[in-house]
Amino acid sequence: MKQTQEGITVKKQENFSEWYSQVIQKAELADYSKVSGCIVFRPSSYYIWETVQKQMNEEFRKLGVRNAYFPLLIPETLLKKEAEHIKGFSPEVAWVTQAGDTKLNEKLAIRPTSETIMYYHYKKWIRSWKDLPLKLNQFNNIIRWEFQHPIPFLRTREFLWQEGHNAFATEKEVHKDTLTILDIYEKILKELYAIPALKGKKSEKEKFAGAVYTLSLETLLPNGKSIQCCTSHNLGQNFSKAFDITYLNKDEKKQYVWQNSWGFSTRTIGILVAMHGDDRGLIIPPKLAEIQVVIIPIIFDDTKKDVLKKANEVKKLLKNYNIYLDAREDYSAGWKFNEYELKGIPIRIEIGPKDIKKNQVILVRRDTLKKGIVKIKDLNKNIEKTLNDIHNNLYNKAKKFLGDSIVKVNNMNDMKKVINSGKIAKINWCLGVKCEELIKERTDGGKSLNISLTEKAQGKCFICNNTANGVAYFAKSY
Amino acid sequence: MKQTQEGITVKKQENFSEWYSQVIQKAELADYSKVSGCIVFRPSSYYIWETVQKQMNEEFRKLGVRNAYFPLLIPETLLKKEAEHIKGFSPEVAWVTQAGDTKLNEKLAIRPTSETIMYYHYKKWIRSWKDLPLKLNQFNNIIRWEFQHPIPFLRTREFLWQEGHNAFATEKEVHKDTLTILDIYEKILKELYAIPALKGKKSEKEKFAGAVYTLSLETLLPNGKSIQCCTSHNLGQNFSKAFDITYLNKDEKKQYVWQNSWGFSTRTIGILVAMHGDDRGLIIPPKLAEIQVVIIPIIFDDTKKDVLKKANEVKKLLKNYNIYLDAREDYSAGWKFNEYELKGIPIRIEIGPKDIKKNQVILVRRDTLKKGIVKIKDLNKNIEKTLNDIHNNLYNKAKKFLGDSIVKVNNMNDMKKVINSGKIAKINWCLGVKCEELIKERTDGGKSLNISLTEKAQGKCFICNNTANGVAYFAKSY
Repeated sequence: MKQTQEGITVKKQENFSEWYSQVIQKAELADYSKVSGCIVFRPSSYYIWETVQKQMNEEFRKLGVRNAYFPLLIPETLLKKEAEHIKGFSPEVAWVTQAGDTKLNEKLAIRPTSETIMYYHYKKWIRSWKDLPLKLNQFNNIIRWEFQHPIPFLRTREFLWQEGHNAFATEKEVHKDTLTILDIYEKILKELYAIPALKGKKSEKEKFAGAVYTLSLETLLPNGKSIQCCTSHNLGQNFSKAFDITYLNKDEKKQYVWQNSWGFSTRTIGILVAMHGDDRGLIIPPKLAEIQVVIIPIIFDDTKKDVLKKANEVKKLLKNYNIYLDAREDYSAGWKFNEYELKGIPIRIEIGPKDIKKNQVILVRRDTLKKGIVKIKDLNKNIEKTLNDIHNNLYNKAKKFLGDSIVKVNNMNDMKKVINSGKIAKINWCLGVKCEELIKERTDGGKSLNISLTEKAQGKCFICNNTANGVAYFAKSY
Repeated sequence: MKQTQEGITVKKQENFSEWYSQVIQKAELADYSKVSGCIVFRPSSYYIWETVQKQMNEEFRKLGVRNAYFPLLIPETLLKKEAEHIKGFSPEVAWVTQAGDTKLNEKLAIRPTSETIMYYHYKKWIRSWKDLPLKLNQFNNIIRWEFQHPIPFLRTREFLWQEGHNAFATEKEVHKDTLTILDIYEKILKELYAIPALKGKKSEKEKFAGAVYTLSLETLLPNGKSIQCCTSHNLGQNFSKAFDITYLNKDEKKQYVWQNSWGFSTRTIGILVAMHGDDRGLIIPPKLAEIQVVIIPIIFDDTKKDVLKKANEVKKLLKNYNIYLDAREDYSAGWKFNEYELKGIPIRIEIGPKDIKKNQVILVRRDTLKKGIVKIKDLNKNIEKTLNDIHNNLYNKAKKFLGDSIVKVNNMNDMKKVINSGKIAKINWCLGVKCEELIKERTDGGKSLNISLTEKAQGKCFICNNTANGVAYFAKSY
């Protein structure tokens, strides 16, 4: 009988990247594949993505968004139609040039995003104001052949995402919708992932290639690197002009449509792992856990029958949760404790011979590792409360960490110190590209995350001494 | 006000391929894309696929199958590991050779199926009998660059599917499981698509490249061409030997695993369209209909308010169905009737001023186009029954057509006649490849569909005069 389970061998605080790599592999979330930068989503991580999809589908449906599927491959001529767009994406496009033994006449891009292939059809489908708004979403796979060091989930050459593409009759509608989408993303990150984020607008330098503006949610990982969680782009009429997408309004006048696009990817799974995990391994927020409660019977030969019977009763009692009874006898209870801690299962219930006499169980929370005795009659209520507590605890911890990491600065020296200590510098900024480039240079790579949507700028930009036009966050970033 | 809606302009019987092309476009199921052979799945067809996915997930979960996601790209060396497999697929592989401006060191195949990329990992994950069975499924996109004339859904270079890959400790288990999967496919085709099919084993010539044997479901489309609906392959130890996937059994002895793989694709959407549609357009089987019942109020200025009120009441009453009230006033009722017939919505309810006085509605079935009056108090029960009736009617019609199209033959002349009249020839066959090739030649392209799993062969193969080993079906085929 295998009595030990190899856990995580490094501390999160001491060697974050090794810790992260061990967690995603040992908790069986992902595996490195034979293609550098591409990973296998094992069932535990794919379950998370499926759960997020379900929730997103519900939210999007309320907005009248329908799901569709557009081709994986985009002809080069189509990809090149919007000038800024192709400039932004061409360095990382994977090209299909051959089929069987035949060289193709035109190279085909594997979609790095689907604006160009979708809008070719939008032009055909949109004729009249009656056809608007058109709101489509697709869940699909994306290839962006980055040459930076890949990290599972956080930076992979292939990833899964949803990309939504809405077209409207008016500028006002598209502006409002772009914000609405960001609110939905924020809700999903908070309520499912237990992840807080800074909401704002990307700088001109960092916005999506082809957008008028890009909104984003950004958060800070425990290793002091910030990361973009998702984006919502107002494309204005940039693409409708490039693709000639027009409609006849009620006065029979031809107008270009107003568009946005918005994406949320499996990168968020990596954010979840990095944010919540600890030295024992993964911690999955309860709403994304395929197993929310694992029951482990403590088995001795003489009491085995009774313990298993009670364990099954408890399983039935908790049928409204994602419950798993691990009654395997070729693994010891101790091995199982380690296994489910490593895998981040929110609650463990232990049931032994002493417990069944007292009609109780031992309940262990994964986040705090606190152990308690719970009477079986109180169990259902207790589980509900504990799952909520775990979610809130994870969220609040991450929120406190994010809040504590933001430091207001007003000179380059402090900015450099803050950014290089793994924190986020908050500044009043002119929003100019030149200052942004100077910051990057002077802080050894600090990048703008986004610009607050609500806070008003005060005074001057300390870099150029011109009027400050926004309150922005800068940090080292993925 | 646009008062007419352009319907299907050709008869299904007279020009099937033009009819099919019009239906998929005008009913807004799909659109031809800029990449030849690749289509857009518009929301109406993608909804069908999402519904099928849900049902499949339920069925697969009962078998202990979990969903995962493996990389899109497969290195050439990996794809080549199983000799028969690469021989079968290499002519239609799309190759990525370039990323950005950089030529790749090794060509990467876009998955034509995922055995090779998955089993590289199975080797790592499977160590002991405790790791078996391993059952994984993925829903993903596939590219097979066929050079034949593409047809939306039925033959496309990119398609969506699920591919399941199970590994077992014993030959007995894999054999049983391969059959179980075929039963699930049969159930889904019958209960969701209303499609009957012939269940059997593919010939040696037609089996999957790398399989020991392939099971399939085959049906006949109204244009007299048969089509493979889905397949379940017993791979034996062919891949476990090529990929060195072994486990230690309870006696600590190393054994190769036994594997199967099984796939069901969006081709089935095309089968549904071709099978059930009529001269007015699409007919969607009720269980796959995003709108099962459409309510169309008959609006006149003086009674508008009352009619809309009643229409909304009816909508509420039928909330357990996928119900849509089309109250748009910029389209006439007549236009809407045509629109929803074209789109194949199973039931139409008309509510006019006369009806509200009598507490009744007009109900029109899409399959038979029969019109009836239903009292509102009986409506819920009537809808339930009518949706069932429609499903059964579609299935029974298709089943009768399939049954009527099968003709037993025992000489090449009759076989040629049957096959060239768009029917299925049923023969006692030696199962030899030589006879199969001879049939193809002599019948202008007749192919074996599959070999019955239940019927016993009688007498001799009329081609070679050797003992018949199976009862097989031959036809012209996609």
